[in-house]
Parts: sequence; structure tokens; C-alpha cells
Amino acid sequence: MAEDGNLHIGNSNYNREEEADPENNTMNQPLLKRHRTLSSTPLALVGTKVSHIESLDYEINENDLFKHDWRSRSKAQVFQYIFAKWTLACLVGLLTGLIATLINLAVENIAGYKLLAVGYYIAQDRYLTGLLIFTGANLGLTLVATVLVVVFAPTAAGPGIPEIKAYLNGVDTPNMFGATTMIVKIVGSIGAVAAGLDLGKEGPLVHIGSCIASLLGQGGPDNHRIKWRWLRYFNNDRDRRDLITCGSASGVCAAFRSPVGGVLFALEEVATWWRSALLWRTFFSTAVVVVVLRAFIEICNSGKCGLFGKGGLIMFDVSHVEVRKGKIHKVLLSLSVSLFTSVCLYGLPFLAECKPCNPSIDEACPTNGRSGNFKQFNCPNGYYNDLATLFLTTNDDAVRNVFSSNTPNEFGMVSLWIYFGLYCILGLITFGIATPSGLFLPIILMGSAYGRMLGTVMGSYTKIDQGLYAVLGAASLMAGSMRMTVSLCVIFLELTNNLLLLPITMFVLLIAKTVGDSFNLSIYEIILHLKGLPFLEANPEPWMRNLTVGELVDAKPPVITLRGVEKVTNIVDALRNTTHNAFPVLDGEDVDTGGGTELHGLILRAHLVKVLKKRWFLNEKRRTEEWEVREKFTPVELAEREDNFDDVAITSSEMQMYVDLHPLTNTTPYTVVQSMSVAKALVLFRSVGLRHLLVVPKIQASGMSPVIGILTRQDLRAYNILQAFPHLDKHKSGKLR
Amino acid sequence: MAEDGNLHIGNSNYNREEEADPENNTMNQPLLKRHRTLSSTPLALVGTKVSHIESLDYEINENDLFKHDWRSRSKAQVFQYIFAKWTLACLVGLLTGLIATLINLAVENIAGYKLLAVGYYIAQDRYLTGLLIFTGANLGLTLVATVLVVVFAPTAAGPGIPEIKAYLNGVDTPNMFGATTMIVKIVGSIGAVAAGLDLGKEGPLVHIGSCIASLLGQGGPDNHRIKWRWLRYFNNDRDRRDLITCGSASGVCAAFRSPVGGVLFALEEVATWWRSALLWRTFFSTAVVVVVLRAFIEICNSGKCGLFGKGGLIMFDVSHVEVRKGKIHKVLLSLSVSLFTSVCLYGLPFLAECKPCNPSIDEACPTNGRSGNFKQFNCPNGYYNDLATLFLTTNDDAVRNVFSSNTPNEFGMVSLWIYFGLYCILGLITFGIATPSGLFLPIILMGSAYGRMLGTVMGSYTKIDQGLYAVLGAASLMAGSMRMTVSLCVIFLELTNNLLLLPITMFVLLIAKTVGDSFNLSIYEIILHLKGLPFLEANPEPWMRNLTVGELVDAKPPVITLRGVEKVTNIVDALRNTTHNAFPVLDGEDVDTGGGTELHGLILRAHLVKVLKKRWFLNEKRRTEEWEVREKFTPVELAEREDNFDDVAITSSEMQMYVDLHPLTNTTPYTVVQSMSVAKALVLFRSVGLRHLLVVPKIQASGMSPVIGILTRQDLRAYNILQAFPHLDKHKSGKLR
Repeated sequence: MAEDGNLHIGNSNYNREEEADPENNTMNQPLLKRHRTLSSTPLALVGTKVSHIESLDYEINENDLFKHDWRSRSKAQVFQYIFAKWTLACLVGLLTGLIATLINLAVENIAGYKLLAVGYYIAQDRYLTGLLIFTGANLGLTLVATVLVVVFAPTAAGPGIPEIKAYLNGVDTPNMFGATTMIVKIVGSIGAVAAGLDLGKEGPLVHIGSCIASLLGQGGPDNHRIKWRWLRYFNNDRDRRDLITCGSASGVCAAFRSPVGGVLFALEEVATWWRSALLWRTFFSTAVVVVVLRAFIEICNSGKCGLFGKGGLIMFDVSHVEVRKGKIHKVLLSLSVSLFTSVCLYGLPFLAECKPCNPSIDEACPTNGRSGNFKQFNCPNGYYNDLATLFLTTNDDAVRNVFSSNTPNEFGMVSLWIYFGLYCILGLITFGIATPSGLFLPIILMGSAYGRMLGTVMGSYTKIDQGLYAVLGAASLMAGSMRMTVSLCVIFLELTNNLLLLPITMFVLLIAKTVGDSFNLSIYEIILHLKGLPFLEANPEPWMRNLTVGELVDAKPPVITLRGVEKVTNIVDALRNTTHNAFPVLDGEDVDTGGGTELHGLILRAHLVKVLKKRWFLNEKRRTEEWEVREKFTPVELAEREDNFDDVAITSSEMQMYVDLHPLTNTTPYTVVQSMSVAKALVLFRSVGLRHLLVVPKIQASGMSPVIGILTRQDLRAYNILQAFPHLDKHKSGKLR
Repeated sequence: MAEDGNLHIGNSNYNREEEADPENNTMNQPLLKRHRTLSSTPLALVGTKVSHIESLDYEINENDLFKHDWRSRSKAQVFQYIFAKWTLACLVGLLTGLIATLINLAVENIAGYKLLAVGYYIAQDRYLTGLLIFTGANLGLTLVATVLVVVFAPTAAGPGIPEIKAYLNGVDTPNMFGATTMIVKIVGSIGAVAAGLDLGKEGPLVHIGSCIASLLGQGGPDNHRIKWRWLRYFNNDRDRRDLITCGSASGVCAAFRSPVGGVLFALEEVATWWRSALLWRTFFSTAVVVVVLRAFIEICNSGKCGLFGKGGLIMFDVSHVEVRKGKIHKVLLSLSVSLFTSVCLYGLPFLAECKPCNPSIDEACPTNGRSGNFKQFNCPNGYYNDLATLFLTTNDDAVRNVFSSNTPNEFGMVSLWIYFGLYCILGLITFGIATPSGLFLPIILMGSAYGRMLGTVMGSYTKIDQGLYAVLGAASLMAGSMRMTVSLCVIFLELTNNLLLLPITMFVLLIAKTVGDSFNLSIYEIILHLKGLPFLEANPEPWMRNLTVGELVDAKPPVITLRGVEKVTNIVDALRNTTHNAFPVLDGEDVDTGGGTELHGLILRAHLVKVLKKRWFLNEKRRTEEWEVREKFTPVELAEREDNFDDVAITSSEMQMYVDLHPLTNTTPYTVVQSMSVAKALVLFRSVGLRHLLVVPKIQASGMSPVIGILTRQDLRAYNILQAFPHLDKHKSGKLR
């Protein structure tokens, strides 16, 4: 090939490549390719609506202004920045801890008074009144939670963890981290959990922690931001990413009082990018959370918190995709689920046999209060109803009762079957309702049920405690559905405070995860997929090695480039006719004929819009001086994301003027050569955290443009690529992890 | 600029750029630059010698042969590969656990019998005989450890952790993970620790774990490798990196019986690249280690392990740079240190006052055996010598005694001062000796001393236990010297099995690390620096934003390129005249005149040597077919690292023949455009794990080479860059983390 000089450039590029690389024979189907184009639809399900989603700019946008701003920072400012980062991490922990305590207090008190009232009527044998109060209170609480979510913040429904995962991967879902969402999530969680629905407050806590982090980072709610000077340092996606990581770790820590578990959860499950420095700051946040929680438990132990008892074993969660129906429909759905839940919880215990109290056990038996391991319910004195122990209590207490050790044969096999069956059904119907909800607690309830059942069956053969079986059952179902290992192990370690359980927990988790992995993706990944969030996986698909980025950009519409000093009309055209978020900026004598052009860099759409809004136009085609730019734009302004320029009216004479794009251009965009395999390009894209990846030609010749395409997150998604290159699908096989 | 067409290519490149980018004014000193070149000296201190170090190829070398091999893998082979990975992870854990148990058994028995003998003579008031036996035994053990290290494996000296850190960062230090090193490390550790030197077995255990992993991955010792077919999948640096990460985590786990702590140690301190999948496999290895350790402790508890008592609180470590002196000198140095240590440990307790036993404490007092918290030594019955309790025992037991709770006022202030002072001195003089040694235990000894002293001073004001002060003192000194936080916290959590200590431990660690960070680097980083290992930091220096990779390659000698079909003589010249490990391969009609050339990829030196050795020469200049290459080379052969071709004699007629480099060329090397800032290039280099980074021109024109340079790890090191561009130094300021 070096001999015959088949250097057909431009359109015949593809044929040349084919000839040059006979090994690459899986690609010998250009016809298939020509007919398809790589489409990118930046749409996903956000809350209840299909919304436009944005990618985040985690890359440092090294333009002249940034470089000047950065260079002009004094040592004091650098110190201020570092100090601010730590202060914010501390505040995130502090506020998450406070709000978690508030939620716990509210739930325990509301649910507690409800259960006390119900218990009062049951003790008098007035079962129907008890049922009415139980059901009525639950319906009221569900109503509050659902109405708030449906009317004010649809994004507050569900757990929010998949969206946080997507955010940290580089996808922004609108209205996810606002003040309204946070408040609705707090109040809604209290209502839904106190209503006894089969959901947890732990996923919501993770989301609340992230909201706090995001709000602190941007200086307050969207319309009332504090414009402190030092906050400008945080006006970028990179620092906000770090803060939200701290927030999610704090949320897990607040949910489980497990600081190390929180850090590991953020590391293993949520975060895409991770650095040692972040480990360290996340750990600081969770340490603050633990101190706050501990302080409040001290206060509450002295009896100042009403019915706040042991503070609840607390867990986290996830929810399914919303049903896209009307608002009334959704409220009704929630209420029906609540009604069904209440009736089952109240009615099913009547099916259980009364069991005699075991006098050799220290605990009070039977009990009538709101907690206690041996509920009397409808039984005579000296007997307890084992199903009522599990059903007529808060979910947290139910789990604690199932986990209780040294209580062999407390629960009958029939009761455990009913308990397991009911929570399977409730779990399925509860996930979709419009309240802040979590999958974690339902999973623990289910898992602990079959664990305890196994324990009861094995009871006569081993000496292992039945409570331990229940804990292991819960752990196995969590590992099987969420595929976390190390973080789950540490959370259980910190929950049970028993190191001796560690090796057996580890093996249970390993087996559950392995079995789960051989069937499908983890529940978070499935939700991400269902919602259409363009999450980039860490491992490229094997067939991506057989495709080059050059072929990928060939399947896309031609890239729109701008010149270093460009006419206003061309800029307006580029903005109007495309939705691209960045444009390559080329320099050189004759960009159009292609003789000796050079790549200056990449300019963001937001900066172009800023230029138009500020009318920074030049009468002649010339390069500007540094001071001219600095006079017109501040780094804070450029950090704002703005892409709406409908209100900018540009006269036809202005249209013929020029703009010098050089000072606003990021001169250091990441690039790949067109012969790079998609697999390796994806590794680069994800490891460095890119939004745009420029593709440069592998050939050096006059007439070539120095940029042949731009790849974005959407272009690198396996699903989208397979749409454009369907013949690759046959190569699809198990990933090499 | 777009108007006046100042497209001076080639040598005047630099001036053009200056003109094009007036903002970049910190670079207006080309004269300084022209006089210097970027030198790369791949030399570092390995063991006791300055050796040539190699970079590792963590990048996937996507050449035709690899692609074919990869594509031809059946599902069964993929499964085999995954199964093999998990089996190896299991084996690493198993063997590390076994060897750790072996070391523990040996140390406890040897030191135990030594201490029993000494105690026997002391009880008879024959102090001089006791001293002779004590000193003699210690000298003998030290001699064994030192001679083994000096004669057989100088790389076994010290802890090995910095070298493992460097390996995982991409730097191979020769003879670091061999079978000899491992055996010497095992035996040497036993000797040095049993000799009562101020060092620990924990760092060595981390090194041993890594050696096991490396040996398993390559199928045995260098000269007796098992050539199993499936092992060929592990014959690459990527998979070996993962295995060694598992090995180091297993080592920490074996040292502290802390599986989660081991994983976090690998994550926080040792590893550079990390993925969720690795977290998961590392965790599996540590789980196996814990099971092995636990099984042996069960066996030993039934009294089958001689003097093996509580199994030792176990810790890890680090050592200083070797003194480059003769072998005899080093043996003498070790023996003097051993002598000094023995005399101090034996003699100083005579200075302590005898303290009366506290009858309200349950423990036996005084004791004469090898362990026990209240040693009688030279005191009358009913009295104990508090210094003897700390000195005449193993280091592990000393730590356990200082940590002991509910023993207020056990140790006098004078004794604690002597203890602290002695271990400060011993720590300083012991680090440099030629035995496997660790810094972890010495640090714990020092830290616990000042912690306990503070506890004694505060004793009358607080109710906090003195043992807790000692634990916190040890934790603070470790965090202050090693700068680990989360992993240390989990290790302490798993050691003390007390979750209530967690918040206070966290804050002590945070404060210690912050104070330490404001003074210097962590001790591992200092050692890496002293040894000259080219470790790449995660955060680029701030001034790297002001330098482009184009300027960097301008300061290097011109890049040597090869053609796609190249003459043998050119290849031989390239290999002889340079030490480069890879060469860009260019294609096109006329490479020399530069009209329309294209970048085909990058070929490794090892593959060129392979071609010469196999004499895969062509008579005419032509492209080869795929089968021709596959007939000649197997993927296993190509995975071998080989760069010595002195024994290859090539005739002058062969010199005029051709080689088709295309099928052996990695067609997907990572590239950056010359205008990329060094900061961002470094982020790419480190995140993706590269060995070579190609620099392509930003300008598209005839006559340009499509590659203007290659950057390696050495070129991106801050120190080397500052040598070539000294004016950047003034911009040097605190890193923005």
C-alpha cells in the first residue's frame, strides 16, 4: 500500500481504510452503514416527563480567560478555595445529619402515636375501630406524601439513586437537586414511611444529602443564590461533582449510621470518578454525620424526643419507573396501595395462631405498646400473636424483630410464609407509586423472611441462631439485587457491630452477587436503562474493538466548524441549525479550501450565546487583545450555563460583523486519531470525564480538515452504535470484566 | 492571524505559536528552552544498586495479531479466563494466609523460647548470663536475616511497599517479585522480628502477598515457569497489575486480620488504577485470607502450635533507603544495631523502680513467663518492673501491654519517657539495615508511648482510659506519617472491634493527616522520591497548565519513525541507536518528503527484536497476508518482553531486505494534539495508564509529519520538566487538590 499510493482522501476515506487493513474484515459491509446514521436523542424519563437531558462539563475548559483567572489567583485565594471545600464538606455532613435526625424523629413519633391509638382499641377488643384508625391515618399520610410529589416535585418520587449515579457519570437530569425537590422529599419520606408503606427512607436520604450538597455548592436555591465571591470557585461541574459525592456518602451514613459504609457505598455504587483526595473529604463528611447522629441519640436517650425509641435500624432503596398517567390517577394509585397495605397488615394477623410466651426469655411477653417483640394483639394473656409482632409496628421494628437473636421458634412457619408472601406482593405494587420511596427496606424485609424460614427449618440440625439466618437472608437479597459487596459488608458490620459475622457475610454476599450477575444487571443499572439515562459503563463491549471512531463519525452528519475570527451570521446559523454544545474552532489561511489549516480548539455553545448577548462584535476581522476580553467577560459569567438566545435580536448589519473566538476557545480539547478503536476511545472518554471528544485524521495532507468529527456521550453508547451498525450485534457476547 | 497566513511550519513552529497566542506570555523565553533538553534517566535505586527501570504496558496493544487472537476466543475460553482470574485471586489469598500463619508461628515460637530462657536466668538472679543469651540469640537471628538479604536478594530489604506502589503506577523494578526475593523475605522477616529489632513483619507481608500474586500470574519462578495454555491470558501487564493489587490487599489483611482494611489499604495507598470489578475480586482474596487465618487460630487455640499465644497484634511498615556500602559493612551494621537494641532492652529496665502490684486487678502480677502485663524481672515478689513489661517481650506483646485498658497507673511516667526515647532512637537507626523491615510497628510503638503519656497526665481530669489514649496516639502518628485515613480507620476498627471508638479515631486521623500534609509528603512518597522511582502523581502541578506538550517534544531529540514496510537496516539502526521502547509507524507515498503521510500506529521495541530474531524478512517491499504473520508468531511469544538482540547476527544481504510492520503495529495508540497542556496530557496518561503518548500536530498541511513526538512517563515528571524549563519554577506553588 505504501507503494501504490492509494491516498484517496475525503469521501473515499472509508474504502481506503478497508484496503489498508484487510484484517478488519468484520467491517466489510459499508452498504449497511451508509444507510444508517448514528442518532443521538438526549431524552430521558425525568420524574414523570420525558425531558431533555444535558451532559456535564467535567473537563477543565482551558481558554485564555480561565488561564488568566487561574494564574491571577493569589496564595490566599488558593487557601480560601481549599478552606471553602472543607467547610462545604463539613456543612454537607452537618445538615444531612440534622435532617436525618428530623426525619427519624417525625417518623417514630407519628407512627408511634398511630400504633398506640390502634393498640388501645385492640386491647378493648374494638377491632373495627382500630382498623378504621389504622387505615385512616395511613391513607392521610400517604395522601400528603403523594400530593406533594405530584403537584410540586415529580422528581422527588422514588429513591433518586439512579439519577445521582447518572449525574456523577456526567448526565444532568433537570430539577433533580433543587430546593423544592429536597423539601418535598423530606416531608414526603416522613409521610410515606409513617404510613407503613412497604418502602424505606434510606434512598431518599441519599438523595437529600446530594440535594444539600448541590444547593450549598451553588450558594442556595436557583432564584435566591448567594453571590459570595468565593463561591464562584464552585461554579463548575467538577467541584459540584465532588460535593455531590460527599452528599451521597453522607446520606448513606445517615441512613445506616455507618460512616465507612457510606464512603464505600459512594465509591462502589454511585461514583464514576474517584480520587484519593475525595476519599478523604467524603470520609470527613460522614464523620460529621455520625457525630451529629450520636449527639441527637444522646439527647433522645434522656427522653426529650417523644416516642423516639431506639432510633430505627435504617436502610436505603430505589424505585421503579413512573407510570405516565394523570395526577389524579397517581394519587388514587397511592391511596389504593396504602389501603391494601393497611388492610393486609391489620387483617392478616388474625390468621395466625396465638403462641404461648416462653417464660425462659427475659423480654416482656406479651406486649401491647408500640414496640416489643411479642405483641398480644387478639390473644389471651400469656400468649402472643407472632404475625402482629411483624405487621403492627414500623418497618424498622419489624426488621429488628426478625433479626432478634436468642428467640428460637418465636415465629411460626405459617406466619413467616404469610410475612414473606405479603412483602413480595407489597414490594411489587408499592415501587411505582408517587412518593419518595426506597427499595432497600422492602428487600431487607423479604430477605430476612426467607432467611428466618431457612433458620427455622435448619433449627434442629445446627446451633446457628435464627436471627443470624435472617440477617444473612437480607444481605443475600441485597447483594443479589444491588450487586454491592464491600460496602454492604461494611454496612452490615457497622449495623451489627459484630466482626465475627464478617467472613460468613462475605461469602453470602459473594455467592449472591455471582448468581445475580449471571442473570441480569443490577437493579440500579436496570432503572438507568429504563429511564433512558445515558450511563457509560466502565467496560467497553468486546465488539467495540472492531469499530474505529473514524467509522463512527462517518455515520454522523458532518461536523460544523467555526473559524478563529468568525462572522456573526455564521455563528448564529450554527447555533440555530444545530443543538451541538461545542464547535471546533479552526485557524489558517483558507479554511474552506483546506490548505494548511490548524485546530485551535473547541468553543462551548454557552460561550457563543454569551458573546451574542453581550454583543461583543468587531467591525473588522482581527485578533483581540487580552484586556478586551477581560473587560467584557468575567470568569463567573462564563461559568454560567446559558444556551437560550431567542431574546437576542441581532440586526442585519451586526450579522456582517466579526467575533474573535480565540480567547474563549478551550485550546486543549482531548482528541483521538480516526483509527482509534471505539473501545479505547470509550475508556478515554470515561476515565478522563469528557463531554466532547474530537476526532482528528490519521493522515497528514493538504486539503484535510484537522478535525473530522466530534463524539459525545450519546455516540459512544453501545445501544446507539448498534442501531447504526446492526451487523456488529452478532459479535455481542459476554463482557470480559 | 487567519488573515496574514503566518503558517510557518516545522522549525519556526514555536514562534508562530507565540504569535498566535499572546496570552501565553509566561512562555516568552525560548532561549532558555533551546539550551536545555528534556532528559530522561530511567534509573532508580533498586535494592542496593542503581538499576535500569522499565515502564509497564498497561495499554492494550491492539495490533492485528492481538485482534485476531481476541476474536478467535471462544465462549469457553472467555469463561476459562474469568474462572482463572477468580481461581488465582483465591490462590493468592490462600497462600498469603498460609505464609502469614507460618511467619507468626515461627516468630512466636523462636521469640518465646528465647524469652523463656532469659526469664529463667533472671529468676535465678543470673543477670549477666541472661544478657548473654538474650544478646547472643538476637545477634544470631539478625545475622541470618542480614546475610540472606545481602547475599541472595538485596531487594528483599525494607518493606517493599513503595516499590509495589510504583509497580501499580506503571514502573517495573527488576527482581522485585521473584521467588528468591519472596523466600528471603519470609525467612528474613522471621529472623529480624524474632531478634526483637524495632521493626515489623507487616510491610514484608504486603510484599510477600504481591510476590505470590506475581509468581502465580506468570506460572512460577522465572526459570521454571509452567507453560499452561490458559496462563497465557495473564501474560500481560494489565492482568498482573490486578493480581498484584489483590496480593497487596491480602498482605495487609494477613498482617492485621482486617479484610475490609486490606481492601481499603490497596485502594487508598497502593493502587493507582481502580475499578469496581477489582474491588470485588480484592475483597474475595482478603475473605480467603481471613478464613485461613481463622482456621489456624482455631487449631492453635487447642495448643498444637507451641508457644503461639494470642497470635499477635500485627502491623505493617516501610524502610529507608539503603546505604550503598559493601556487604560486610552491611552485615556489621545490622549486628551493631542488634547489639545496641539487645543491650538497651535488657539494661534499661534496671533503671525503673519496682512498683507494687495492684491487688484489685484480676491479672496475674507479677509474672515471669514470656508474656504477661506485669513482669517481675529484678523486683521482689508482689512488685513488678514496668519497663521490663514493655522491653523484655515481643514487640507485638509490648504494644498489647501499652494498649491494655483498665490498667491506670500501670506505667510510671519515667518508664514511659524511657520507652518513648528508646524507640525514637531505635526507629532511626533500625530503618536502614539490610533486613526485611517495616515502619509500621516502630510508629505504633512511638505513638502509643506518647499517647499513654498524655493519658497519664490527663488521668486525674478525665475518665477516658489510658489504653485508649495509647491507641489514639498510635493512630495519630500513623496518619501523620503515612497519611492514610479511611483504611487506617477500618484497620483500627477491625483490630479493636469497638465501633464506639470510630468517631474519635476519625477526628484524630483527620487532624494528624492535615497537620502532616502542611509540612511534607507522606513517608511512602518521600521514599519513592529518594529511590528515584518515577511515580506519577494524580494531580498535575499548577504550572503544567502553562506548558504545552508541543513545547515538551521540542525540547526532546527528534522522534525516530519507521515506515509501514521498512528496511531491515533502518530497524537495526533504530534499535541500536536509541533505547526507545516504541516507534511510530508511518504510511504514505513519500514519508521523507512528507507529502500526505499517515499515522499507522506504534510498534514496540520487543516486537521489532522478535522480528529480527525470527528473521521474518521479505525480499521485496510488500504488504503481507494475515496468515503469514500468524504462522510465524504466536500471541504468547509476542507477550514476552524481550529487548536484547546482541546475539542476532544479520548478514549484510539481509540488511537490505524488508519487514512488513503493519500486522505487529498497535493501530490505536493514544494521541494528543501539540497544543494540549501538559497538565491535561498528564491526566490522560495517568488515568488511562499509558506508557507512550504520541503528540500529533495541530496543523494540517503537506510536509508535516503526522507525529511530532512521543512522551513517556519520564517526560511528564515535574522534576524532569523543571530541569528543561527552569523558568517555570517560580510559578511553583501549593497544589490545588
